[in-house]
Amino acid sequence: MRVLIAGIDGYLGWTLAQYLVDTGHEVAGIDNYSRRSWVAEMDSWSAIPIAPMSERLQGFHERYREKLTFYEGDLQDYSLVEKVFNEFEPNAVVHLGECPSAPYSMIDRDHAVYVQTNNINSTFNLIFAIKDHSPETHLVKLGTMGEYGTPNTDIPEGFFDVEYRGRRDRFPYPRQAPSWYHWSKVHGSNNIMFACKTLGISATDIMQGVVFGTQIEQMGDDPRLSTRLDFDQAFGTAINRFACQAVIEHPLTPYGKGSQQRGFIPLRESMKCLKLAIENPAAMGEYRVFNQFAEVHSIDGLARTVQHVASGLGLDVEVKNLENPRMELEEHYYNPDHSKLRELGYTPTQSVEDEVRIMLSDLIPQRDRIEEKKRSLLPDVQWGGYRRRSGYLSDIEAQAAGGQS
Amino acid sequence: MRVLIAGIDGYLGWTLAQYLVDTGHEVAGIDNYSRRSWVAEMDSWSAIPIAPMSERLQGFHERYREKLTFYEGDLQDYSLVEKVFNEFEPNAVVHLGECPSAPYSMIDRDHAVYVQTNNINSTFNLIFAIKDHSPETHLVKLGTMGEYGTPNTDIPEGFFDVEYRGRRDRFPYPRQAPSWYHWSKVHGSNNIMFACKTLGISATDIMQGVVFGTQIEQMGDDPRLSTRLDFDQAFGTAINRFACQAVIEHPLTPYGKGSQQRGFIPLRESMKCLKLAIENPAAMGEYRVFNQFAEVHSIDGLARTVQHVASGLGLDVEVKNLENPRMELEEHYYNPDHSKLRELGYTPTQSVEDEVRIMLSDLIPQRDRIEEKKRSLLPDVQWGGYRRRSGYLSDIEAQAAGGQS
Repeated sequence: MRVLIAGIDGYLGWTLAQYLVDTGHEVAGIDNYSRRSWVAEMDSWSAIPIAPMSERLQGFHERYREKLTFYEGDLQDYSLVEKVFNEFEPNAVVHLGECPSAPYSMIDRDHAVYVQTNNINSTFNLIFAIKDHSPETHLVKLGTMGEYGTPNTDIPEGFFDVEYRGRRDRFPYPRQAPSWYHWSKVHGSNNIMFACKTLGISATDIMQGVVFGTQIEQMGDDPRLSTRLDFDQAFGTAINRFACQAVIEHPLTPYGKGSQQRGFIPLRESMKCLKLAIENPAAMGEYRVFNQFAEVHSIDGLARTVQHVASGLGLDVEVKNLENPRMELEEHYYNPDHSKLRELGYTPTQSVEDEVRIMLSDLIPQRDRIEEKKRSLLPDVQWGGYRRRSGYLSDIEAQAAGGQS
Repeated sequence: MRVLIAGIDGYLGWTLAQYLVDTGHEVAGIDNYSRRSWVAEMDSWSAIPIAPMSERLQGFHERYREKLTFYEGDLQDYSLVEKVFNEFEPNAVVHLGECPSAPYSMIDRDHAVYVQTNNINSTFNLIFAIKDHSPETHLVKLGTMGEYGTPNTDIPEGFFDVEYRGRRDRFPYPRQAPSWYHWSKVHGSNNIMFACKTLGISATDIMQGVVFGTQIEQMGDDPRLSTRLDFDQAFGTAINRFACQAVIEHPLTPYGKGSQQRGFIPLRESMKCLKLAIENPAAMGEYRVFNQFAEVHSIDGLARTVQHVASGLGLDVEVKNLENPRMELEEHYYNPDHSKLRELGYTPTQSVEDEVRIMLSDLIPQRDRIEEKKRSLLPDVQWGGYRRRSGYLSDIEAQAAGGQS
């Protein structure tokens, strides 16, 4: 199949391009390197060095002996998106081209507006390019499990049957997102659901858990094929950030009690799932929602796992919980469904421990890079709308006890 | 109270300014005259002529002997919004400044993107102006009953208690909006709900039914105080459009079967409700949803009412249903709650018939204006994403019968 990857220069995009070409698909991609700029704005960089796109493309060609058609530009530019659709005629487009950071969206008004309008516009452009130029192209949209929040009931895959005052209906499961970014994904989900209904397009909306991992086998040891791995407060996600902390023997820092539960999925399994969604498209007019994760873990439990694996590699790290910069429930019920991808053939195979072991060995050579930007590891973007560096809970408790004596 | 009206040049805004000042409040407003441009873009104009803002302000001052502070500019310009907040220090801001048209948003990609980003940005600017400059200002946001769609259960005011697989939670009632415009209002509702939770602001989100009416008593017969009344396919709403059709003895044109049910409210009662919301603010951090309408009617029933009242004034009009340009259920359950405003003291008093009689007598002198732009009365923006003038259902059926013979 011909697969267009929007956001091909990113963590998932660059990985997916290789995974799909290696398994027989033809790939094109669009990117304007925004992710590189956003991370630089957070005064950080990828722990694993990434090559400029020209070198990436050269390395890609040498490894896979396949052309990768790359378009440099902004997904918000509809004339570019139209050109790409007309030239490449994709069977599927995978939308990995949104700004993916909750803390980045919470910095201030400018960032909130930017993240939401950037994400809404780019999604509209893909919807309308399909409608105007390629009605049968399947839209695979990356959403997030975060769209659902942490409700007190099971979380179905997108829709649920409800009885209310004696009458029944099937509803979209209510979203209660925890940041402007997560809401931008909800807005996108709502827009796509409506596009399927009125414009008749075919879409799969992936509610993905937190992804972790540094590589897939296909990348081998060519540094031009490596994908990025962020550890800053805005673009680094839980396990990835803990792994980077571990290699510089910095405390691992769950936010708050750390008893928050989330769905997680290794990078290599995220690729398998996306491939299954692409190869088994939604019907015309169908809006299909997949909850895409391997297992549910608590953040604290994952920090302990990283600590344990690190210790086996001679890395001695504490777990030190931070004041939570986010507003979120720390104790909550969490039981999301995740059967649709399993029905298509997905079986989780990689254990968190094994994946973390690979990550740490990939990251140890990058110790100096992480050390140089380690200030970006700790959060100062506070959900209440201001910036203040979060302290360690243990220090705060000690201070409070001292103050009382 | 000091009340800032965003969108003060519009149908509701210009009316509300007068209603509030007349009842003892101090008012300021912002507008960039977008509504005038949008209606001109639809090749139409207000049935009732409206004065330029300079004359409106002069007339306002002569009538009410109160200053109305007017700021000309775009709500998307945050520095302007900040300036207005700092100078006027509003106790409440009423957000009537969004693009309010479903068909306008459905024209094409450009219009969909424009309506959603315009509405999201302007709402963000009010949220952040409150947060940054005036945390106690109550945000009264105009949403629409259309956000809910036409579900098969009762519609509560914003939230409902649900049992799902044996566990209970209180959820935002799922929105199933019928256009890009209506989704922009849902996106805004979601953003405001989140702003209340994280930034602690106070907000009332008004799910308003379809408003109809040409005047409130306060306007008297000074044409500078008149508010606009649109009849084009995009900005004219059901009863207003039927009334304009009636005065030029054009058939009244419900879309499809016309058995669609909606909540309706006369303009004068919309003002009473907004005043109640303003004078009884939500608590700090509270996100409160009001369903604001007087009665539920079917579109066809309302066309019959307008036909009946018009007939009493010697106007002879048919009801001729049109091919429905929208995708919507024409037969559906509809039973929305609407008790919260009644608890604050709202009682519907104006009958639809009486209001339509006033409307027709206000509109008869404008017959030539409506006649001149009557092409804009009939829809050609089709929900499937193209433009084609909808035909009369009776003609289409006759043609089909002829084709079969």
